Amino acid sequence: MSLLVVGSVAFDHVETPFGKCEKMLGGSGSHFSISASYFTDVRIVAVVGGDFGEAEQKVFDEHGINTSDLERIPDGKTFRWQGKYEYDLNVAHTLDTQLNVFADFKPKLSEEAKRSRLVFLGNIQPDLQREVREQMPDAQLVALETMNLWIDMTRESLQKTIEVVDLMIINDAEARQLTGIPNLIKAARQIISWGPKALVVKRGEYGAALFTANNYFAIPAYPLESVFDPTGAGDTFAGGFMGYLASQPTLDEPAMRRAMIFGSVMASFNVEEFGTERVRRLTPDEINQRFHSFKQMTHFEEIPFIRA
Amino acid sequence: MSLLVVGSVAFDHVETPFGKCEKMLGGSGSHFSISASYFTDVRIVAVVGGDFGEAEQKVFDEHGINTSDLERIPDGKTFRWQGKYEYDLNVAHTLDTQLNVFADFKPKLSEEAKRSRLVFLGNIQPDLQREVREQMPDAQLVALETMNLWIDMTRESLQKTIEVVDLMIINDAEARQLTGIPNLIKAARQIISWGPKALVVKRGEYGAALFTANNYFAIPAYPLESVFDPTGAGDTFAGGFMGYLASQPTLDEPAMRRAMIFGSVMASFNVEEFGTERVRRLTPDEINQRFHSFKQMTHFEEIPFIRA
Repeated sequence: MSLLVVGSVAFDHVETPFGKCEKMLGGSGSHFSISASYFTDVRIVAVVGGDFGEAEQKVFDEHGINTSDLERIPDGKTFRWQGKYEYDLNVAHTLDTQLNVFADFKPKLSEEAKRSRLVFLGNIQPDLQREVREQMPDAQLVALETMNLWIDMTRESLQKTIEVVDLMIINDAEARQLTGIPNLIKAARQIISWGPKALVVKRGEYGAALFTANNYFAIPAYPLESVFDPTGAGDTFAGGFMGYLASQPTLDEPAMRRAMIFGSVMASFNVEEFGTERVRRLTPDEINQRFHSFKQMTHFEEIPFIRA
Repeated sequence: MSLLVVGSVAFDHVETPFGKCEKMLGGSGSHFSISASYFTDVRIVAVVGGDFGEAEQKVFDEHGINTSDLERIPDGKTFRWQGKYEYDLNVAHTLDTQLNVFADFKPKLSEEAKRSRLVFLGNIQPDLQREVREQMPDAQLVALETMNLWIDMTRESLQKTIEVVDLMIINDAEARQLTGIPNLIKAARQIISWGPKALVVKRGEYGAALFTANNYFAIPAYPLESVFDPTGAGDTFAGGFMGYLASQPTLDEPAMRRAMIFGSVMASFNVEEFGTERVRRLTPDEINQRFHSFKQMTHFEEIPFIRA
């Protein structure tokens, strides 16, 4: 297998100014793996309850996502999140969170899972992320994400985990919170100094940036005239990013730059409809066409100026 | 003459967490024309008082800026602005504004001024901007900027002015305020529909975007680890943008895209020191080197993906 993701599978109940949707397949692991599946073979490590049925399994199956390591607890209930967005879709309100079986989630990796070439440690308690990382000493690239809760509650453990991964994906507010540094460029340099070779900073509607030891790469977001449901956009970005990387023989900076674009492409599709609906029925052509749009909207000729 | 700017010349008193500076040469017209002077011949239309002395004149002279249309009112005082920035330099407080001679400013254009190829209508009352525009029917490109005050107070007149210019430069908050549309892409399309062939949206630390009828171009800001004084960054951007355009034989989209980069380059230098200090002593090599950095930090190879 080439890409392993540890994350959540959830049922999302989402209300936006444009509509409402009940019990959609969601969670970071779902958004990530469906997005990544367009580029590579994906295996998901997560936990679900007895309410995870055939319809949900079918979504994974149709995308060739390996669910052998998807733990099932028949007498438990799947993680449930309920949220509401305002007209300014940057403003989200969590109405209800029921962790259910996810509350006691301890990732269990099969021998096959441990042989994955790339790993994405989705947003779970940092001690658990480190345990997974330690079981995969031969992985070529281990990537990490986190959230404000873990920065607040388990900062020391999180820092230890950051020290043993190759790449971190974070949003700009989290990068500032994690380092206590308001300037994003300085904050990013600080995180890089702790160990990761690369840092991806997501900036929502402003795009994303890639920091490596000596370089900086930044891209705008795809210009969307309407955003329908932003739920899962970050996970879909991560899935496109990691999925594309996993499809590449060499994990160098040029590949990472293209991965940034593919991640942004996938995220831009994700927000066009509820939940995973749009991303589920993408074609490789649609993805490559939007990749081409990114080239068009960022290209300029390098012609030095000469004062007449 | 190739580029005319109508704007303000001021004395700025600025305090940032990193220092304090009294009676610096400032104002939109000063920042704009010094920045533009690296690329083209600039003429400034503005008004100053008797306190505008040899030291200030020398700055314009040293940059070859034509001040024949700089009106002098010996018994008046020059526009004075006093401001203070917080540690988050996005938060600025205006402590004092004394419009002085700028309060009754009515741009007077010499015959030579009217023959300028490009015009930048800096931030003054929109009726006055339109009067200038009407005196220059043969200009190849007329650009406009404005501010929240005019959007609030003189919306109708502003809209009339927008209808008769070729290009508008605005920041993202102003674009939303002007149109009442929260989505920036939609807001930009709306403004374009009123008449301008191009719209430049400044997004501060997130970069800038260029909208034309059929295209979209977006660039990040130069990644600065420390910003010293942001005063005049927007005017310096506009000066670099318009100055570079004025140096080009054809004002097409590829030229505008490069102009976006040169504008960003100049703005990135501006914020490194107080007022116009850093921009005043730039060299063409420094400017071209930073232009090259923009290419490096935005380049990626366009290789469509093929699922293995």
